[in-house]
Amino acid sequence: MKRILLLGAGLSASSLIKYLLDHAQDNNWEVVIGDLNLEMAKKKVNGSPNGSAVLFDINNEDLRHIEIEKADVVISMLPAKMHPIVAQDCVNFGTHMITASYVSPEMIKLDAAAKEKGIALYNELGVDPGIDHMSAMKIIDDIRKKGGKLVSFKSNTGGLVAPESDNNPWHYKFTWNPRNVVLAGQGVSQFIRNGMLKFIPYNQLFKRVQNTSVLNYGDFEIYANRDSLSYRETYELQDIPTIFRGTMRRPGYCEAWDVFVQLGATDDTYTIKKCNQLTYRDFINSFLKYETEIPVEKKLCDYLGLDPNGEVMKKLIWLGIFENKQIEFEEATPAQILQKILEDKWSLDPNDKDMIVMQHKIEYELEGKLREITSSMVVIGQDTVHTAMSITVGIPVAIATKLLLTGVFDFAGVHVPTKPFMYEPILKELEDYNIKFIEEERIIG
Amino acid sequence: MKRILLLGAGLSASSLIKYLLDHAQDNNWEVVIGDLNLEMAKKKVNGSPNGSAVLFDINNEDLRHIEIEKADVVISMLPAKMHPIVAQDCVNFGTHMITASYVSPEMIKLDAAAKEKGIALYNELGVDPGIDHMSAMKIIDDIRKKGGKLVSFKSNTGGLVAPESDNNPWHYKFTWNPRNVVLAGQGVSQFIRNGMLKFIPYNQLFKRVQNTSVLNYGDFEIYANRDSLSYRETYELQDIPTIFRGTMRRPGYCEAWDVFVQLGATDDTYTIKKCNQLTYRDFINSFLKYETEIPVEKKLCDYLGLDPNGEVMKKLIWLGIFENKQIEFEEATPAQILQKILEDKWSLDPNDKDMIVMQHKIEYELEGKLREITSSMVVIGQDTVHTAMSITVGIPVAIATKLLLTGVFDFAGVHVPTKPFMYEPILKELEDYNIKFIEEERIIG
Repeated sequence: MKRILLLGAGLSASSLIKYLLDHAQDNNWEVVIGDLNLEMAKKKVNGSPNGSAVLFDINNEDLRHIEIEKADVVISMLPAKMHPIVAQDCVNFGTHMITASYVSPEMIKLDAAAKEKGIALYNELGVDPGIDHMSAMKIIDDIRKKGGKLVSFKSNTGGLVAPESDNNPWHYKFTWNPRNVVLAGQGVSQFIRNGMLKFIPYNQLFKRVQNTSVLNYGDFEIYANRDSLSYRETYELQDIPTIFRGTMRRPGYCEAWDVFVQLGATDDTYTIKKCNQLTYRDFINSFLKYETEIPVEKKLCDYLGLDPNGEVMKKLIWLGIFENKQIEFEEATPAQILQKILEDKWSLDPNDKDMIVMQHKIEYELEGKLREITSSMVVIGQDTVHTAMSITVGIPVAIATKLLLTGVFDFAGVHVPTKPFMYEPILKELEDYNIKFIEEERIIG
Repeated sequence: MKRILLLGAGLSASSLIKYLLDHAQDNNWEVVIGDLNLEMAKKKVNGSPNGSAVLFDINNEDLRHIEIEKADVVISMLPAKMHPIVAQDCVNFGTHMITASYVSPEMIKLDAAAKEKGIALYNELGVDPGIDHMSAMKIIDDIRKKGGKLVSFKSNTGGLVAPESDNNPWHYKFTWNPRNVVLAGQGVSQFIRNGMLKFIPYNQLFKRVQNTSVLNYGDFEIYANRDSLSYRETYELQDIPTIFRGTMRRPGYCEAWDVFVQLGATDDTYTIKKCNQLTYRDFINSFLKYETEIPVEKKLCDYLGLDPNGEVMKKLIWLGIFENKQIEFEEATPAQILQKILEDKWSLDPNDKDMIVMQHKIEYELEGKLREITSSMVVIGQDTVHTAMSITVGIPVAIATKLLLTGVFDFAGVHVPTKPFMYEPILKELEDYNIKFIEEERIIG
């Protein structure tokens, strides 16, 4: 019997746990769910004969060592900063490890030791990073195989609300960590287009959007993701003249979100003291000029050049930012206050479904023609537990775990799924879960 | 004989050194100038019989201990982050210490030990912080003494080029650390007006300027300084409804500077690799949209809504940012590249003079009337060695040193000059150096 230790039983692990328990009997697995919240872990096991729950506290070294030593593989769905601690234990005890997170410098340092012990440290096996790598590399490798020359790579992903649950003027709800949504894009976004480096600072990011449509799911807008340049190395596209990665939202979202950026309401670097003495309206007013005679709405419109009857103001009013509702925190950053305001309105309802959209647009030259491949994936969640996010993050992790425990994956050390021996079997099985890409190709020059 | 050890013989110490050497004979002082650059230290001593130079390397513990132990007082003009090391030594060896820098948390921690040893750790004795505190507290204390109630405190300072040397369209030259000028205002600026907290993010800071005029020196514009709120405690104005601190520039500066802010050209958080393959023009273009058919100048005007023939574009063109001149760095942050471009144009010429402008506007109620005091100081530099900056930073430090060594200042521990027993004798002697405030008062309500 193989023992799988899954760490972190939160929302993102739901579909992963279901896959593991569903396949436990056939594969002779013992699935141990470890979480700081033992009740939640027990609930996720749901009485399955092959499952059990344990209290897991990353800071309790003794318990941590006992559990990691007993396991054949650890799947860490913990916050990414905790992975290095787990990874070091895995190397010490000869236990494999799998994550859905970006490889960190600390993880890379463990590569040699992991290889020596013959253990796997597999990362970036979720959706983004994960499915994005696998599906993109499959197209890239196919183009190379037939002698094509890659000239442009663009890849966009969005976690959104499904069309059937889309009932607010933002066409957006929180389907993932709200904090990351509020802070998204801070710093600089960089990419390269036709050989020219481009840098977009945060204050321009949501103004410089592009548009696309995906299958029959309608229109989306795209803003640039932080560092597209680093993907030249990840995908071995060092000399490609154009590389761009973006985040997808429904049209109109970015223009309205930019209001918060321009105001400074997404700032997470300082706290406002005694903010429970302020209302939502005071909060917005604190970013506007001192003018007691003019209503906050009008001041905002004048300040940022908004149409008082336009779509942006409709979105803002709908959020309740002008209401005289008390802020609940005693001391908080603007970003924390804004997050709270948004959570009141952007949470999924019990019957809501979410949606993951991913689209690659890849241009290449072959036989004197410029061709464009558009490869699109849309996954709709089943419900608020088995969300599209939970499915697309969890299933590839689960498949990789199975392939590792069954000996199909027999390579040790730190890996991400950018090579055919890794992405091919995973992409193949993902299709059984309706996680698949529709490819269109056309000649564009 | 009293031994003064001055650490850091850079530009900002010129007038301080001159004062110490000029007063050494009369006061029976031995003035030792320590610097990493021994030649520069020797040059500053300039053969004075009471002066000598030593090599001083903060990282050479043995030498550091020897020199600090021998001294009666250490004046540290080193970078502020080095002060705690020197301060700890001063406490250990029972040597007094004086700086022109903000009191750091590490410094405050040494207060009790300093008091026990009976040594002084005096800080914030330059111009800003320093003269600003002293002159403001004198007005505040005077108002309190006559029973007035403070309702508004605004204080603005600028380091600028003197009118007689003002010969460029920005009406600005570097008279102090250029890096600080390029990075000025990053983060949030916060203040309070009529009891309402106001937060201005960096991307709006240079758009939200105020105007003032100072004596017969003409007009200035003001942008908010980072944290005005903390001055409520420094000046014991906890309940004042309005407190604001700002930085002064000549009119038109902020609108043009905002172009760099909006572009992202002042970002110091990431580096551009191989930037010696780029020209100044490419650098500006990297922040603009990809459009090969449209000249960079026109793209910039379209992007930020600038008049192609307006004053802002005149300033930018004058700086040379559109020239095909190679960037000299191999790898640098945008802020570093911009600083280099500016240094080519904004350096003081050999005959140039600089200027320090400071203005407080303080409102108070007395006998049913609302009154406003405007207190203004302008200091023009003598030359490029004894700059206004060097004079206004160095002379108060020097005076405090004299008052300490002559026993007028006999209080131990960490102090800043916000109390009459400290600011009164310093302000009095500053007048001998023509560092004085012109006060105007009027009834405004």
